[in-house]
Amino acid sequence: MKLFYSKGACSLSTHIIINELGIKCEFEAVNLGTKVTEKGTDFYTINPKGAVPTLQLDNGELITENLVIQQYLVDTHKNNLCPSIGEIKRYHVLEWLSFGASDLHKSFTPFFAYKMAEPALPDIFLTILKGKLNILEKQLADRDYIAGKHFTLPDAYIFVCLRWLGVAKLTLADWPNLSNYFDRIKERPAVIQSMKEEGLIT
Amino acid sequence: MKLFYSKGACSLSTHIIINELGIKCEFEAVNLGTKVTEKGTDFYTINPKGAVPTLQLDNGELITENLVIQQYLVDTHKNNLCPSIGEIKRYHVLEWLSFGASDLHKSFTPFFAYKMAEPALPDIFLTILKGKLNILEKQLADRDYIAGKHFTLPDAYIFVCLRWLGVAKLTLADWPNLSNYFDRIKERPAVIQSMKEEGLIT
Repeated sequence: MKLFYSKGACSLSTHIIINELGIKCEFEAVNLGTKVTEKGTDFYTINPKGAVPTLQLDNGELITENLVIQQYLVDTHKNNLCPSIGEIKRYHVLEWLSFGASDLHKSFTPFFAYKMAEPALPDIFLTILKGKLNILEKQLADRDYIAGKHFTLPDAYIFVCLRWLGVAKLTLADWPNLSNYFDRIKERPAVIQSMKEEGLIT
Repeated sequence: MKLFYSKGACSLSTHIIINELGIKCEFEAVNLGTKVTEKGTDFYTINPKGAVPTLQLDNGELITENLVIQQYLVDTHKNNLCPSIGEIKRYHVLEWLSFGASDLHKSFTPFFAYKMAEPALPDIFLTILKGKLNILEKQLADRDYIAGKHFTLPDAYIFVCLRWLGVAKLTLADWPNLSNYFDRIKERPAVIQSMKEEGLIT
């Protein structure tokens, strides 16, 4: 399979999950500004939505949307990153994945968009983002990972979003539980491997 | 089971799915401004995230996040709203549910937030929202429902978001495929029933 990604974007979370699962995968970078892949392909001809991550299966079929690709990967590979259908715990893991993909990630969108826009960004967006971080901070008061004792799908997604705090001029120092959590995840071999493969660390 | 909802909010999509499945369910409204339920309960004591929809199972267990609640419902009830695990089509249905919950819904967030904020909202947010609507418009060029010939989970979610266009001073008239799609969905018995139960129509 092949993952279309953009360096450090939310696709990094899928990249991490692929490496956590030990799946053999090709990676092709997409320039999200020009929508051209590193091999020179117009990315819109691959995914009309123009968004990463996009997973291309060996039969050519495409799966898009971070949290759907990640569900596909755990549903088709032996893993301990997400409980199976039939277990109520599955939905609690997916709740945090959804919170990461919808609430947390999308609270950063105004800050990324603002870099292209004027006038100044209304303060309400900082309030919204801080509210999401506060929810995570509270949840981590009595656990090492967001859904419990073990690393599961949402931890990769939340980790990736926490790397973006600078765009909102925030630092993890104000959220001590999140700060420890971030440090815990960044030491995972699959995370280090993924960040090296995207050229984020050497 | 009981669904905590707010009139016309994204929880309406879960409300519709519950009625599509014919599930017996109690509904309790939440005032999202005061975070108090219609029975006078502090909603934060039920869901610390303070968000609707929140589903309370008969054993008291809670499931949150729209697209997770909806997956739980189809995974535990006979249905034709989402293919089972093992079918690749499942992920294509979930792709559009994720697009609805993350991309489309969250593109409205700045407009709802702006009502509380100053200064004027940068134009970039209208561009982003129109981009999401254009993707849906194109997808609907050759199909009646977003994932194919039949109504599936994402159709309820997208329908609910399309009801919000006014907040961005947009109208469906500029997206003819979406306009027909909206009219098709609003005639469904489960949609009419849900909108009546939330007091949106008489």
